Amino acid sequence: MWVIENQQYLGEVDTWSRAEQFGDGVFETLLVSDGVSRALSLHAKRLQLGLRSLQISPPAQNLQDMLSGYVDNMVEYSGLRNGVLKVMVSRAKSARGYGYEDQAEPCIAVFFSPYQPPKSGFYEQGIDVQMCSTQCSIQQQLAGLKHLNRLENVLAKSELQSDCFEGLMGNYLGLVIEGTMSNVFFEKGDALYTPELSLSGVAGIMRSLIMAHCRRKGIALHITHIKMNALAQFDSAFVCNSVMGLLPIKKIKDKPMAIGKLTRQLQMAIRSGEIYA
Amino acid sequence: MWVIENQQYLGEVDTWSRAEQFGDGVFETLLVSDGVSRALSLHAKRLQLGLRSLQISPPAQNLQDMLSGYVDNMVEYSGLRNGVLKVMVSRAKSARGYGYEDQAEPCIAVFFSPYQPPKSGFYEQGIDVQMCSTQCSIQQQLAGLKHLNRLENVLAKSELQSDCFEGLMGNYLGLVIEGTMSNVFFEKGDALYTPELSLSGVAGIMRSLIMAHCRRKGIALHITHIKMNALAQFDSAFVCNSVMGLLPIKKIKDKPMAIGKLTRQLQMAIRSGEIYA
Repeated sequence: MWVIENQQYLGEVDTWSRAEQFGDGVFETLLVSDGVSRALSLHAKRLQLGLRSLQISPPAQNLQDMLSGYVDNMVEYSGLRNGVLKVMVSRAKSARGYGYEDQAEPCIAVFFSPYQPPKSGFYEQGIDVQMCSTQCSIQQQLAGLKHLNRLENVLAKSELQSDCFEGLMGNYLGLVIEGTMSNVFFEKGDALYTPELSLSGVAGIMRSLIMAHCRRKGIALHITHIKMNALAQFDSAFVCNSVMGLLPIKKIKDKPMAIGKLTRQLQMAIRSGEIYA
Repeated sequence: MWVIENQQYLGEVDTWSRAEQFGDGVFETLLVSDGVSRALSLHAKRLQLGLRSLQISPPAQNLQDMLSGYVDNMVEYSGLRNGVLKVMVSRAKSARGYGYEDQAEPCIAVFFSPYQPPKSGFYEQGIDVQMCSTQCSIQQQLAGLKHLNRLENVLAKSELQSDCFEGLMGNYLGLVIEGTMSNVFFEKGDALYTPELSLSGVAGIMRSLIMAHCRRKGIALHITHIKMNALAQFDSAFVCNSVMGLLPIKKIKDKPMAIGKLTRQLQMAIRSGEIYA
């Protein structure tokens, strides 16, 4: 095919990135602290699940070793020991059209960026959160995966008002799903609640770590459908992801929230590293 | 940020394609016949709607002139007078993260490929169509748009058995939405029926042309919810898109379909060019 890119005629080109044409791939975002990433095995496991679900040939026999190698390389190349590593694995390039060749070699792009953590006050006093009008799509085959079709997150993020650090997204069925770049948990009495993600959303690594921690510690955790219009029942809530950890919510829309006992307990477990046990 | 792409260390790079990172853009696919594309104004209109919906700055004041210019350039560069032009417009490059700068210059990639039309027998005797298990996502803000988040089409297409030219996709609510690369119409008695696309799907240009033709000719057309389990009620059906035109369906799953009177009438209107009136 003949290609013009940004006004420049490139001549005849056989193939073009399928990540760019279709978002045909998955990605992982890892926190690197003092030269290491502490949740490599979970990231590798989710990456493997994503590749298998999309029928993309894995780029390495051992994905955990691959991720670990990228962490080491980037720490060396950049001279930074703290940052965020993003690894995108997409299906091989192809010409126009949805079809693809089996067994084609996948493409990998890896970015390493300095990390600017949220203000420390956000961890202590909590953040304001708004409700986004952009929905999470309902798509059972893709739900849970961290795939490259992320337009809805882009649109939801663009809705955020300057005083809101994060926004919550629901789906067409009126269920709360997640934040624009995080998962969400709610606290009531002695239990935690987090949205079930079989229809929509990304199953985050910090969410998995928190789930495992709750199992180990005997903390009641309900993974369930939570209606957008039923948030008033909860006393406390927080958002989390692998990079920023856990941020308590001090206000959802106009409703003030208290910072819960379990929320603080989990925050400590992340700070101490116990969460990665 | 520091970048490694396919094992190659690229050094420090400020930004990366947002189409590749997030599928953050839209595209159009135009048929070029004898050096011209006959539905430029509709493609330009849909492109404009898509860009506005995603809040991407339009890359030109007059998008129809822009598309027309790409057709002319590509016909000249390639020496081909017949082919398929694909124009992808995505939001400007950025670093990692969903946020973006307003007013950033969009990126444009344009491909021109030779066109291999389906066998002529498919137009005469019809095609076999299967039901895909991959769903169309339900996402009200993105429904109708031809955006770059096309993983579900890739997965649905990969399901196609060798004897099926196309597959039909439904959504979580059990509604028929479209083909993997086409829109679908059904015929019963003196009327046509096509899925309403406010929850899922791409509003195709050939679909729009057929809708306009039906209005002009007084052909009854119902744009409505059609349940997957209610397809048995229809006598005939066809799929269509801007590139291949209209293909009658001779079998859906195991159910043989007749080729309808209106289906043939529309096929003639496409062949004669009357559809572009």
